[in-house]
Amino acid sequence: MTSLFPSFRYGGDYNPDQWDPSIWDDDVRLMQGASVTTATVGVFSWARLEPQPGQYDFAWLETVLDKLHAGGVRVILATATASPPAWMAKLHPETLPVDEHGTRLGFGSRQQYSPSSATYLEYALKLVRELATRFGKHPALEAWHTNNEYGCHISASYDDESVEAFRAWLEKRYGAVDELNRAWGTGFWSQRYFSFDEVDAPRQAPSFRNPTQLLDWRRFSSDAMLALHRAERAILDEITPGVPVTTNFMGFFANADYWTWAPYMDIISDDEYPDPADPVSHIHAAATRDLMRSLGGGKPWLLMEQSPSAVNWRDRNAAKAPGQHRAHSFQSVARGADGILHFQWRQSASGAEKFHAAMVPHGGENTRVHREVQALGREFAELSAGNVLGAAVPASVAIVFDWESWWALGQEATPTRVDYEQTVLEWYAALLRRGVTIDFAPAGADLSAYRAVIVPAQQVMSTGEADALAAYAENGGCLVVGYQSAVLDRDLHVHLGGYLGGAGSALQAALGVAIEEFAPLQAEVTTWLSGALAGSAGVWQEHVVVADAQTVATFDDGHAAGGAAVTRRATAAGGAAWYVATQPDETLFDALIRRVLRDAGVAAAFAHPEPGVETAVRGGTRFVINHTGEPRSVVAAGRDVELEPFGVAMFPAEGAE
Amino acid sequence: MTSLFPSFRYGGDYNPDQWDPSIWDDDVRLMQGASVTTATVGVFSWARLEPQPGQYDFAWLETVLDKLHAGGVRVILATATASPPAWMAKLHPETLPVDEHGTRLGFGSRQQYSPSSATYLEYALKLVRELATRFGKHPALEAWHTNNEYGCHISASYDDESVEAFRAWLEKRYGAVDELNRAWGTGFWSQRYFSFDEVDAPRQAPSFRNPTQLLDWRRFSSDAMLALHRAERAILDEITPGVPVTTNFMGFFANADYWTWAPYMDIISDDEYPDPADPVSHIHAAATRDLMRSLGGGKPWLLMEQSPSAVNWRDRNAAKAPGQHRAHSFQSVARGADGILHFQWRQSASGAEKFHAAMVPHGGENTRVHREVQALGREFAELSAGNVLGAAVPASVAIVFDWESWWALGQEATPTRVDYEQTVLEWYAALLRRGVTIDFAPAGADLSAYRAVIVPAQQVMSTGEADALAAYAENGGCLVVGYQSAVLDRDLHVHLGGYLGGAGSALQAALGVAIEEFAPLQAEVTTWLSGALAGSAGVWQEHVVVADAQTVATFDDGHAAGGAAVTRRATAAGGAAWYVATQPDETLFDALIRRVLRDAGVAAAFAHPEPGVETAVRGGTRFVINHTGEPRSVVAAGRDVELEPFGVAMFPAEGAE
Amino acid sequence: MTSLFPSFRYGGDYNPDQWDPSIWDDDVRLMQGASVTTATVGVFSWARLEPQPGQYDFAWLETVLDKLHAGGVRVILATATASPPAWMAKLHPETLPVDEHGTRLGFGSRQQYSPSSATYLEYALKLVRELATRFGKHPALEAWHTNNEYGCHISASYDDESVEAFRAWLEKRYGAVDELNRAWGTGFWSQRYFSFDEVDAPRQAPSFRNPTQLLDWRRFSSDAMLALHRAERAILDEITPGVPVTTNFMGFFANADYWTWAPYMDIISDDEYPDPADPVSHIHAAATRDLMRSLGGGKPWLLMEQSPSAVNWRDRNAAKAPGQHRAHSFQSVARGADGILHFQWRQSASGAEKFHAAMVPHGGENTRVHREVQALGREFAELSAGNVLGAAVPASVAIVFDWESWWALGQEATPTRVDYEQTVLEWYAALLRRGVTIDFAPAGADLSAYRAVIVPAQQVMSTGEADALAAYAENGGCLVVGYQSAVLDRDLHVHLGGYLGGAGSALQAALGVAIEEFAPLQAEVTTWLSGALAGSAGVWQEHVVVADAQTVATFDDGHAAGGAAVTRRATAAGGAAWYVATQPDETLFDALIRRVLRDAGVAAAFAHPEPGVETAVRGGTRFVINHTGEPRSVVAAGRDVELEPFGVAMFPAEGAE
Repeated sequence: MTSLFPSFRYGGDYNPDQWDPSIWDDDVRLMQGASVTTATVGVFSWARLEPQPGQYDFAWLETVLDKLHAGGVRVILATATASPPAWMAKLHPETLPVDEHGTRLGFGSRQQYSPSSATYLEYALKLVRELATRFGKHPALEAWHTNNEYGCHISASYDDESVEAFRAWLEKRYGAVDELNRAWGTGFWSQRYFSFDEVDAPRQAPSFRNPTQLLDWRRFSSDAMLALHRAERAILDEITPGVPVTTNFMGFFANADYWTWAPYMDIISDDEYPDPADPVSHIHAAATRDLMRSLGGGKPWLLMEQSPSAVNWRDRNAAKAPGQHRAHSFQSVARGADGILHFQWRQSASGAEKFHAAMVPHGGENTRVHREVQALGREFAELSAGNVLGAAVPASVAIVFDWESWWALGQEATPTRVDYEQTVLEWYAALLRRGVTIDFAPAGADLSAYRAVIVPAQQVMSTGEADALAAYAENGGCLVVGYQSAVLDRDLHVHLGGYLGGAGSALQAALGVAIEEFAPLQAEVTTWLSGALAGSAGVWQEHVVVADAQTVATFDDGHAAGGAAVTRRATAAGGAAWYVATQPDETLFDALIRRVLRDAGVAAAFAHPEPGVETAVRGGTRFVINHTGEPRSVVAAGRDVELEPFGVAMFPAEGAE
Repeated sequence: MTSLFPSFRYGGDYNPDQWDPSIWDDDVRLMQGASVTTATVGVFSWARLEPQPGQYDFAWLETVLDKLHAGGVRVILATATASPPAWMAKLHPETLPVDEHGTRLGFGSRQQYSPSSATYLEYALKLVRELATRFGKHPALEAWHTNNEYGCHISASYDDESVEAFRAWLEKRYGAVDELNRAWGTGFWSQRYFSFDEVDAPRQAPSFRNPTQLLDWRRFSSDAMLALHRAERAILDEITPGVPVTTNFMGFFANADYWTWAPYMDIISDDEYPDPADPVSHIHAAATRDLMRSLGGGKPWLLMEQSPSAVNWRDRNAAKAPGQHRAHSFQSVARGADGILHFQWRQSASGAEKFHAAMVPHGGENTRVHREVQALGREFAELSAGNVLGAAVPASVAIVFDWESWWALGQEATPTRVDYEQTVLEWYAALLRRGVTIDFAPAGADLSAYRAVIVPAQQVMSTGEADALAAYAENGGCLVVGYQSAVLDRDLHVHLGGYLGGAGSALQAALGVAIEEFAPLQAEVTTWLSGALAGSAGVWQEHVVVADAQTVATFDDGHAAGGAAVTRRATAAGGAAWYVATQPDETLFDALIRRVLRDAGVAAAFAHPEPGVETAVRGGTRFVINHTGEPRSVVAAGRDVELEPFGVAMFPAEGAE
Repeated sequence: MTSLFPSFRYGGDYNPDQWDPSIWDDDVRLMQGASVTTATVGVFSWARLEPQPGQYDFAWLETVLDKLHAGGVRVILATATASPPAWMAKLHPETLPVDEHGTRLGFGSRQQYSPSSATYLEYALKLVRELATRFGKHPALEAWHTNNEYGCHISASYDDESVEAFRAWLEKRYGAVDELNRAWGTGFWSQRYFSFDEVDAPRQAPSFRNPTQLLDWRRFSSDAMLALHRAERAILDEITPGVPVTTNFMGFFANADYWTWAPYMDIISDDEYPDPADPVSHIHAAATRDLMRSLGGGKPWLLMEQSPSAVNWRDRNAAKAPGQHRAHSFQSVARGADGILHFQWRQSASGAEKFHAAMVPHGGENTRVHREVQALGREFAELSAGNVLGAAVPASVAIVFDWESWWALGQEATPTRVDYEQTVLEWYAALLRRGVTIDFAPAGADLSAYRAVIVPAQQVMSTGEADALAAYAENGGCLVVGYQSAVLDRDLHVHLGGYLGGAGSALQAALGVAIEEFAPLQAEVTTWLSGALAGSAGVWQEHVVVADAQTVATFDDGHAAGGAAVTRRATAAGGAAWYVATQPDETLFDALIRRVLRDAGVAAAFAHPEPGVETAVRGGTRFVINHTGEPRSVVAAGRDVELEPFGVAMFPAEGAE
């Protein structure tokens, strides 16, 4: 592995244009005091940089960059295209996004542009070209940051131009309209199209909209936003070749399929805001770190934004406890981050984010928050000297994460409400509690390097993907498939004949089971499982037809009473193929994971589940992190570890000792 | 009685146009194996039948009908007008419906037409004429099915054409605008109109909209949809006289007053989808069956749609337990159905309803669901030989069901939230638990044939209707009137002076009471009643002024403490007039019903309440049905009956023995 | 003090135009029987008064006024502009309001006009001029009543004309657009404006809208409505000088800053509808009475509307218990009302408010409600002879109530959900339980006359206002400041450096504390306080930096564990400055209030909290009112008082004995 930067990066978004310039020198002084290496500049500066169409004012920005450079602070320069100025809304109201009810949104917050607006894009690209030309050789420049959190508020627009773009996208995808008819199943409900120009966005309609139309709309919308990034980076690559380009992802973000985005990023960056008041928010956060690492194929990544304490957009915005922010930060480092940045440097005195904490709070430098910011900066500066920077994070278990299954399971008119992200996270959490490090993988990836692969609720799966999973198990891998997997193909057509890839599929053969009928449970209803594995579960039952597998657990009650709930088939090559036909509760999940890990020959760092404590190994160092407000004693990889509240222990990893 | 058909009908919606024609022969084979007699064809075929405006393609449909006929399957042919093609939305966007906020809905689901669109209607009627001409003499044709579930998604539209139609409807109803002013009470809130063209639809407005305008809008919308049916059937009657015409009702459907629709149906058809996971869904279903029989004046009716297992539109779509579908089906037969059809024959592989169960599931013929479908088909084929087919279902108790009271009680700005349908169902359920069969009757019907008549919460009642109820009691009937009855006349003007028809009304005289003041209870608050009838109640209290009645129960607490809660007046002709000023809980309801039945001389089939078990007599056979998943032992009409889970017992009725 | 009228006023809204004229004489007879002195006429009569644009029909109204005058009933004449006729919607659809989603609302309810519509205003002012000219010298005329409940349904409109008016308002406020940029903090999120015509209303937008834009929109909308009143009264003042002008306020109404409205009222009028089923609704009602008195600077005020029993706009509209309406009415009198009017005189037989109780109910004169109305009229007629009429209500404690803090705390993206009105009411309730009478005061008022001043959650406070509070304490007053006060200035910019007016502020000095960091609690989470004051609290914690104050209570747990929760600083002049950094529960509130009252030297009428019982002194009479349905024995100002359910005791006040 190569490190992203010569040392750990530390710093945050810097928005000097919301302050009087007289404060800028003080900013640099404080940055130095906090060991800040990096500032992300210009994210929301479009109106300041281009006060009138085509008139640019870059002098102030140059001053800022000069000052930062003089102070030893490197700059990630934003292209400033995330929030167009008021004059664009006034001159070109057609650039404003339209919601599915037909309402055109107004100016006055941010991100008020249709992703398919040619006018917006033209202005944006001109600005990028000007910025790259002016600042491409500035000595402070470390990387480019296109736009900001693509799609965080507007990830699709129902305006006419977007509909035209959708039609063009469909025509490119399907070639002939009858291929669209086939894919969308328009033979039902009299939905057949005779030309692409009859197709509309899936706007508000009388009843359930066509599922494949909805899916294609999400694919198109993700692509349309990615096209904006790609258009910006094409200019940056042309003018400043070699300067890395990134944009900030938002973790498990439903509206952009980051697997398709990642190849266009030189640096994978992420924004993550775990709720300090939520005792399990570190689980979601850990998964997000692992996703970022996985998106980059294992490369180090950059935490672009986090808050040093509270945010401002929850109903009740808890402050972080002393040490909690450090625990969050080391979680990122342990899971592959080479830099820890924040939103934002100095807390706003006005505007919509003034109640969002920052590295320099309203109270100034003599505050708990800023003292912790300073201490953390020092710590990272020291950590740069070790082996962690740039190092990989080994993982022997993978979870398949598939955006299209997320989109499909979130549609109207499904068998039941399955929260895909939550379902994946429950598998992840059970492994996390045992100290097992996870990679995420896209559907269809080469998984042969993993000892175990988990496929939770991947409702959408092509036959080829299903075949590959089957081959993985037949070749000796430990495959675990959860309910509602391989039910539909990539057009959302049912795999007829027992689901799991359909009648006679290699996946049915590998698992040794087929599914005859779904029998979702009602909300709050639990079912009891007995057999080699026993315990309580919820959400789902179904009728599993066991052809060639061992029944590990049986449903005791409900519609599927007496039927198999968990099965395992040993494969010839020494592998195993598990099928799990329900949603285990936490206790049952732990028992199941213990068996799966044993099956896969994966050693758990924690012999017993350790709620609130996590561990990972990076660069020869084992990190053990306590995310609770109480001291914890754990045995990690055979070693006794005492942890303070929100404490972080680092010691040589067992393999590295 | 005459049976609708020469034998029990069994089958379902058949949508061959969503499949490759290569599968059609297999469909017929499987239909024969399942004893299918009838297929409903073409419900969603408009785009296939008329791929371009005025260009018709009927050959494929003829092939389908020929194959069905050759296989011995009769056809209910849909007019295919339920879901206009994409070209209509593109060429005539003004046909798309508009919601009350002004949003024009898009293409991509179904039923996307304004009920008042002349353009839609013109295309629809041309299609009907073509279909009738082409297939009117096809030997497979058994009946016509206009459109589909009128109003299930769009039962009103706020587009300009609809507003014009509303004005014309109002002008026809009121003649002069000042008669509208009188009826709507526009003297208040400065709402007086000076010409009909000032009147608008009751779209989104600053505050409570005019109640009578809202009522007229619902009347108009129901009429507008009915007009579509009538226009289609006029053509069918012209071209294929003698072929029966139907459309599928949706049970207790709020947006169409089926009493006004029923006269235009040769066959009353219904779609009903009881929730398998809801332990009391059979009550609503039973009431729906009785409503359908009552809409036809006691004639047999046709269950046009049900699901053999799960549906796809609930949050969590439970599968039916083994036998449960049979119990649902026999409930329909016992309550007057001469045919049992399903949505749909073969489960979709794509589209919005692919997760809705069907007679041939995704798993194919070798599945639990299909085996139950086959067994049920055989059973109905055998049942055709008995006396049940075509037979009447005797009932000695009627409940008045009034759509306009439903509409009025559901308005804004009422004394309290009264769920009219639920209120009616609680009366119904108390009778069902005792095995008493109910007819529903419209307001103003001749009720002299019934031993008891129940009038729950009929807020809207004309003086004539109130007089007729009074006469019913005075002539010896047992009349039971619930609170919030006869409060308003048909213009929604208050019957001043004690409600119940107003000061000095015959209804006040018959009941011997008047109402001085309403005193609704808060949510979750109960009140205790004591006296000859004692127990707990909720929802409502009021000040009953007892002039000439026996107080059967008195409120113990609350605003009306010490006042009458239930009264009874014996009439000269041996009848009785009850007034019930609150909403009894289940136990009190059972005690009340016991007294009412005794009063009316009605024998209950169950001496004690039997939750989950129902009974009805048809054609000399008593049906006893267990809707629970446990075995039940009951005494029905003096006979010991053992029932399996979801079991159905049939034996000669007591009168028929 | 001067009384508003020569005797107590008693009566209600009279809408004769919804009835046949034949009933009018009976109305006068019944009014006389109920001791009615006053009728408010014409509130919703525009369509009747101006049936076509510019054609006026005033004869019927003259007849009504003549009849009332002959019957001895005085008239408050409405300008009838609250509900424009249908012809205006038809001829001038641009007068109809538009919501923030862009939907133009329809005719058919009431108040369907944009507050900034010039066309609406032109018609309204012509009508006012005509009415004033015609009836200005009518002997029945007692006062003018402009419009009705300004803003109750529509307090802002997003139509083009309103946006233009908003821009003009902003230009007037800010002069230069860069001053707007400074105030709104548009340096963030690229929101900078280059001309006023780029500014829009804060309509539906992608994300959080600019906070100061939102605040200015509310200021503008309040001003726009007030401008309508002022335009009407300018005409009335011109034509009928000396006739008092009022409009009916709606208590704590969020959308109009009544402090800015009050100077334009000759009589402060209020509409108040406490929920009879809510056991604490009398607290909100009492606060509303005190607010009305305070708005008039202590002058008597007029209760313009209340219901004698149920309303019709709640989900469940409870009737008032016998005596409860009298208790409500005497609460108003005790707190400064010189008249008690109702909505409405005769209960509507049709229309949207027919289920709203009235002085003459549906049941007529021989009803409980009407008998209570008659008795209350007699009682007020007798009370006119005493010292109460026109007398002041002394209060030694003030609560600062600030509409802009209400608006700011109700915005998106705040530290937590703080319900400003509820927070104020909890302080008010704790004082009410002890029988302490409260004045409300606007921010910046001269408070020197009060012994104690409470400032709960005044998030928005100018430096000048903060200085004045500090001076109040330093000069010997007892100041109590709650959390989230003085956080922002009037542009919603943060007071940097410890909040409470900012670093080095006089307020920080007076309180002896500053705030380092907020730490809001999660919903349902409580925190325990210990120290001189101990108990339980919720909603809020923060880090209080105590510089020069006594810590009265300390947080035992949570983020701020060990930090100060309540502080008190004694000032040199014998005053005290309290700071309360959390939301006490009821028990802790009572303990805190006991200390504060002792500190301030304020005697509580009740030695112990008396839930459900209140007291106030007016004109030498102490009123003690029981708002519960049970008898109560209390000691009020040292005197034993026995109260019936909903009973009212009146006796000479201690000072007056």
